[in-house]
Amino acid sequence: MRKLLPSWFTGYQHAWLAGDLTAGMVVTVMLIPQSLAYAMLAGLPPEVGLYASVLPLFAYALFGSSMALAVGPVAVASLMTASALGQLSPLVSQGTPEYLAMAILLALLSGVMLFVAGLLRMGFLAHFLSHPVISGFISGSAILITVGQLKYLLGVPLPSGSILKTLSALPQQLPHLNVTTAAIGIAAVVFLLFSRLYLGKLLKHIGVPEKAADLVTKLAPMAAVIVSTAVVAHYGLDQSAAVSIVGQVPSGLPALALPSLDWHAATALVVPAALISLVGFVESVSVAQSLGFKRGQRIDPNRELLGIGAANIASALSGGYPVTGGFARSVVNFSAGAQTPAAGMISAVLMAVVIAGFTGGFHYLPHAVLAATIIVAVTALIDIDSLVEAWHYDKGDAMSLLLTFLGVIFLGVEEGILLGVVLSLAVLVWRSSHPHMAVVGRVPGTEHFRNIDRHQVETLPGLVALRIDESLYFANAQVLESKVEWLVQTHPGTRCILLILSAVNQLDSTALGILTELEKSLASRNISLQFSEVKGPVLDRLRPTPLGERMRNRIYLSTHQAFVAHTDSAVTA
Amino acid sequence: MRKLLPSWFTGYQHAWLAGDLTAGMVVTVMLIPQSLAYAMLAGLPPEVGLYASVLPLFAYALFGSSMALAVGPVAVASLMTASALGQLSPLVSQGTPEYLAMAILLALLSGVMLFVAGLLRMGFLAHFLSHPVISGFISGSAILITVGQLKYLLGVPLPSGSILKTLSALPQQLPHLNVTTAAIGIAAVVFLLFSRLYLGKLLKHIGVPEKAADLVTKLAPMAAVIVSTAVVAHYGLDQSAAVSIVGQVPSGLPALALPSLDWHAATALVVPAALISLVGFVESVSVAQSLGFKRGQRIDPNRELLGIGAANIASALSGGYPVTGGFARSVVNFSAGAQTPAAGMISAVLMAVVIAGFTGGFHYLPHAVLAATIIVAVTALIDIDSLVEAWHYDKGDAMSLLLTFLGVIFLGVEEGILLGVVLSLAVLVWRSSHPHMAVVGRVPGTEHFRNIDRHQVETLPGLVALRIDESLYFANAQVLESKVEWLVQTHPGTRCILLILSAVNQLDSTALGILTELEKSLASRNISLQFSEVKGPVLDRLRPTPLGERMRNRIYLSTHQAFVAHTDSAVTA
Repeated sequence: MRKLLPSWFTGYQHAWLAGDLTAGMVVTVMLIPQSLAYAMLAGLPPEVGLYASVLPLFAYALFGSSMALAVGPVAVASLMTASALGQLSPLVSQGTPEYLAMAILLALLSGVMLFVAGLLRMGFLAHFLSHPVISGFISGSAILITVGQLKYLLGVPLPSGSILKTLSALPQQLPHLNVTTAAIGIAAVVFLLFSRLYLGKLLKHIGVPEKAADLVTKLAPMAAVIVSTAVVAHYGLDQSAAVSIVGQVPSGLPALALPSLDWHAATALVVPAALISLVGFVESVSVAQSLGFKRGQRIDPNRELLGIGAANIASALSGGYPVTGGFARSVVNFSAGAQTPAAGMISAVLMAVVIAGFTGGFHYLPHAVLAATIIVAVTALIDIDSLVEAWHYDKGDAMSLLLTFLGVIFLGVEEGILLGVVLSLAVLVWRSSHPHMAVVGRVPGTEHFRNIDRHQVETLPGLVALRIDESLYFANAQVLESKVEWLVQTHPGTRCILLILSAVNQLDSTALGILTELEKSLASRNISLQFSEVKGPVLDRLRPTPLGERMRNRIYLSTHQAFVAHTDSAVTA
Repeated sequence: MRKLLPSWFTGYQHAWLAGDLTAGMVVTVMLIPQSLAYAMLAGLPPEVGLYASVLPLFAYALFGSSMALAVGPVAVASLMTASALGQLSPLVSQGTPEYLAMAILLALLSGVMLFVAGLLRMGFLAHFLSHPVISGFISGSAILITVGQLKYLLGVPLPSGSILKTLSALPQQLPHLNVTTAAIGIAAVVFLLFSRLYLGKLLKHIGVPEKAADLVTKLAPMAAVIVSTAVVAHYGLDQSAAVSIVGQVPSGLPALALPSLDWHAATALVVPAALISLVGFVESVSVAQSLGFKRGQRIDPNRELLGIGAANIASALSGGYPVTGGFARSVVNFSAGAQTPAAGMISAVLMAVVIAGFTGGFHYLPHAVLAATIIVAVTALIDIDSLVEAWHYDKGDAMSLLLTFLGVIFLGVEEGILLGVVLSLAVLVWRSSHPHMAVVGRVPGTEHFRNIDRHQVETLPGLVALRIDESLYFANAQVLESKVEWLVQTHPGTRCILLILSAVNQLDSTALGILTELEKSLASRNISLQFSEVKGPVLDRLRPTPLGERMRNRIYLSTHQAFVAHTDSAVTA
C-alpha cells in the first residue's frame, strides 16, 4: 500500500506544511473566479467549473510528478471544449443537459487517452509540438477568446462562429449595448489590468514586502468578484438595468457518477479529445518542467500523462469537464511556497467547502466581471516576444508561429492546432529525410579522414568514401541511396563505394532493404560496396542477413584499413 | 517551348524506338484486361478503366521523371476508391451517375494535391511511410480484394462491408453458386496461376528464348479474356446459364470535361484523396526508383509528384478515376525494353484505338474472368518474406507490419493506412526524441575526448563534459535539458557543464529557448554552462541572441581549450 502512494506523501515533512497551506489558500482564491469564468467560456453552467476544481486536484496529486503544477479548468482547454461541442450543433446545443453530458464525455475520453498513453510510456509525445507552434496557438486562442467574451463584457448581442463575423457585427451592435453591464465590465478590466501591471509596484513602493505585494495582486480577480456581486445585489441591477448575472448555482458536492457512454457521440469526440489531450499535456509538461528546474526537481513526462489523465477521469466522474495544468495558477502556487501536491489537495478541500455551502454568494455575480477576468487572464498569454525572437533567429520557425496563429484565428481552434501539428511533423519529416553526409579523404600522413570540401585531404582513385552522420532508417535511407547513385554518376571510374558508418547507431529493416538493393545494383555495374567503422550492435544484427553474408569480406574495422586494402588491391590489379 | 518539353522527348533517338514500341504493345495487352478488372474492383463501369488508361499516360510522360513507370488503374488505388465512395453511401450508391462523378472528383482532388505538393517540392514525403508499413498495407489490401472478388468469381451473392461478414456468409451461400460461372472463374484462376508460375519455365525448357517466354506469360490474362469471351458468346452462357457478363461498353473516346465541383462532396473526399495520393505516390516512387537504379537513372521525387498529379488531373478531365504507377505493369514495361515514356504514349494510343472501335468485343466477357485476373494479380503482392525478414531483423518493424496488416483487414483500408501513418510517425517522433549523447573524458596524454563508459579517460573534478551527437531542435532539446539536470543531480559538486556541440548542425528556436532557460537555471545554482566545438553557422546565429551574449566568454573553440581553462581557473580558485 505504501509503495503505491507517492513518495512526497509517505515522507511528508512538517516543515512543508506552512508553504503548502499558504499556496493552497492563495490558489483557491484565484481558482474560484477562474473556474466560474472558464466554465462560462466553455458554454457550461458555473458549477461545472467548480466541480472540475475538486477531485481532479486529488487525482493529480496521487499520480503526477510535479510538486507545483496547479490543475483545474484553464482557458485554452475551455475554448477547445466549446469548439468541440459547437461542432455537434444542431444535434446538441448549449444550455441543454446533452451539452453537459458531452462535455463530461470529452473529459472522460481525454483522461483515458492520456492515462493509457502514460501506461504505454508515450511521454515522448510532449516533444511533438515545437515552441513556435505552441506559442502561435496560444496567442491565437487568446485573441479568439477575447473577441468571444466581448458580448458578455459589453452586454451586447454578437454573433459567434467566426472572429470576422463577430468583429464586423460590432460597429452595428455597439449602440445596443447595455450601458450598466459595459460600465461594470470595463471597470473590471481596468481594475484587473491595473492590479496586474501596477499594483505590485505601488505596494512595494509604499514598503509592502515583495512577496506579499505579489500575492495581493493575485487576489484582485476575487476582489472584483466580491465588489461587483455586492454592487449588483445591493442596487438590484439585474432587475433595474438588465445586467446579466450568474443566477442560481446549485450547492452541494457533485454525486460521483459514470458518464453516459454514447458510442456515436464518443466517435465524434475522439479527435477533439485527442487534440485537447495533446495541447493540455504539452502545456502542463512545459509549465511543470520550467517550475521543476527552478528547484532542481525532475519531471517525468510519463507520470505527467498519468497525472493529467487521472485528473480528467476524476473530473468526468464528478460532473466536471476537461482540465489540465494552468500556467498562471501554477506560477502562483510555486511562488506562494507550494512544496508538494498537498497544496493542491488543500485547494480542493477549500473548493469543496465553497461548493457545499457558499454557492449562494455567486447569484448576483455579473457575467461581465467573469468576461473581464477571462480577458485580462488570456491577454497575458499573447506572446509577441517569441515571434520577434523567432523572426530574428529563424525565419522558418517564425513562419510556423504565424501560420498556426492565423490558422487558429481564421480557421478555428481545432483546425489551428491541427495545422500546427502538421507543420511540426512536416519539419520533423523534412529534417529526418536530410541526413548529414560527407565525402571524406585522408589527412596526409595520418589515419584521420575529413570532409573533402573543408580540408586538404588525399583520395584514392576509384574509391569514394562517404561518412554518414546519422542513424539510417526509413525516413532517410532512400536519400543515402540517391546520394550514392549521384556519386557514382559524378565520379566516373568508381570501383568501390565505402560507407563509413561510425555515426550509425541503428539501421532499421527499411534501411537494410535499401542497402541490400543498392549493393546488388552496384555489383551489377562492377562497383563494390564496402562498410567501415560499423558499431558493434549494428554489426551483430547485420551479419546473419543476406546483405551481411554477401559483404562478409568487405566490412572493415577502420576507414584506414579499408584504404590500405584498396591500395593493395589496386597494386595487385 | 523546347525547354518545357522533357529532355527524352527533344533528344529522342531512333535506337530507342524498337524497345519503346515493343514495350508499349506488351503493356497494352496487359492493360486492357486490368483496366476493365480494376474498374470493376472500384465499383465503376468498365469503360472508366479504359478512359483512365489513355490521357494519364500522356500526362505522366510529360511531367514524370521515370523512364519505365507504367501509369494507369491499379489494384490498391481501385480498392481505396471503392472504400472512399462506399462511405458516401447511402447518399451515393454504386452504379449511379453520382457515384461515377465522385470517383472523377476523387481523381481530380488527388491530382491537384499531388501536383501542388510537387510544385512545393514536397517529394520528401515519400520517406514518410516505412517499408514494413507499406508491406503490411499492400498484403492486407490484397487479401481484402481477394475476398471481395469471390462473389464475382463464383457467381454467388455475398455481403460486403467487412471481411468477417463476407467469409462467414460463404458456407451458407456456397450451395447457391452459379456452377457455370464458378467453373469459368476457377478455370481462369488455374490457367492464370499456371501461366505465372510454370508457363515461363515450360517454354524455356522447350527452347523458347528467355525474354520471349517471359513476355508470353504476361499475355495470359488477355488470352483468358479472349477465350472466355468467345466461349460465353458462342454458347450464349449469359442467357442459358445466367453467367454475369460485362455487357454494353460504350465506344468512342471520352469527351474532355471539367468534373462537377460539388464543394460538400469535395470536403468529404479530402481525406480519402490525401490517403490515395500518399499511397499512390509512395508506391510509384519506390517502383520507379528500383527500376531506375537498375539502369543507373535517377528519379526525382518532386517530378514524380508532378507526373502522377498530372496523370490524375488528366484522368479526371477525361472521365477516369484515380491512377498511379503499377508495380507489375512497370516491371513488364521495363523488361520489354521501354527506353522512355514514349512506350506509355504508344500504349495510350493503342488504348484509344481499342476504345474507339473495339469495345463491342468485351460484351460477352464474363465478370468471373475479371475477378480471376484481379485475384491472381493481387495474391502476387502478398509479401510474407518481408514479415519473416523483419521478424528476424527487428521485432518492432515486424510489429508495425503486422498491425498495419491487421488494421487493413479488420478495420478497413483507410483505417489501416492511417494506422500505418501513425505508426511510422510515432517511430519518427520516438527516434527524434532520443538523441545520442555521451559524457566524455580526455584520453590520457592526448587532446582527444571519448565516451567515459567505453574508454579509459581522465575527467576533471567539478566539470562534466557532454557530447551531443545530433542537431538540437524541438523534438529532442528537452531531452538534453533533462539529461543535464540528471547529470547535475548525480554529480554533486559540479561547477561547470560543458556541452560539446561538434555534431550540432542546427539549433532551432525551441532548442535555443530551452538552452537559454537551462543556462539561467544552472547559473542560479552557481553552475556555469559552457560550449565547445560550436560549428560556424550555428555560432553565427547564436552570437547575437541573449544566450549568446550571456555566454560570450564561455564558448571554446575546442574541448581541449575548455579543459585547460577549467584547470587554470581551478588552480586560481
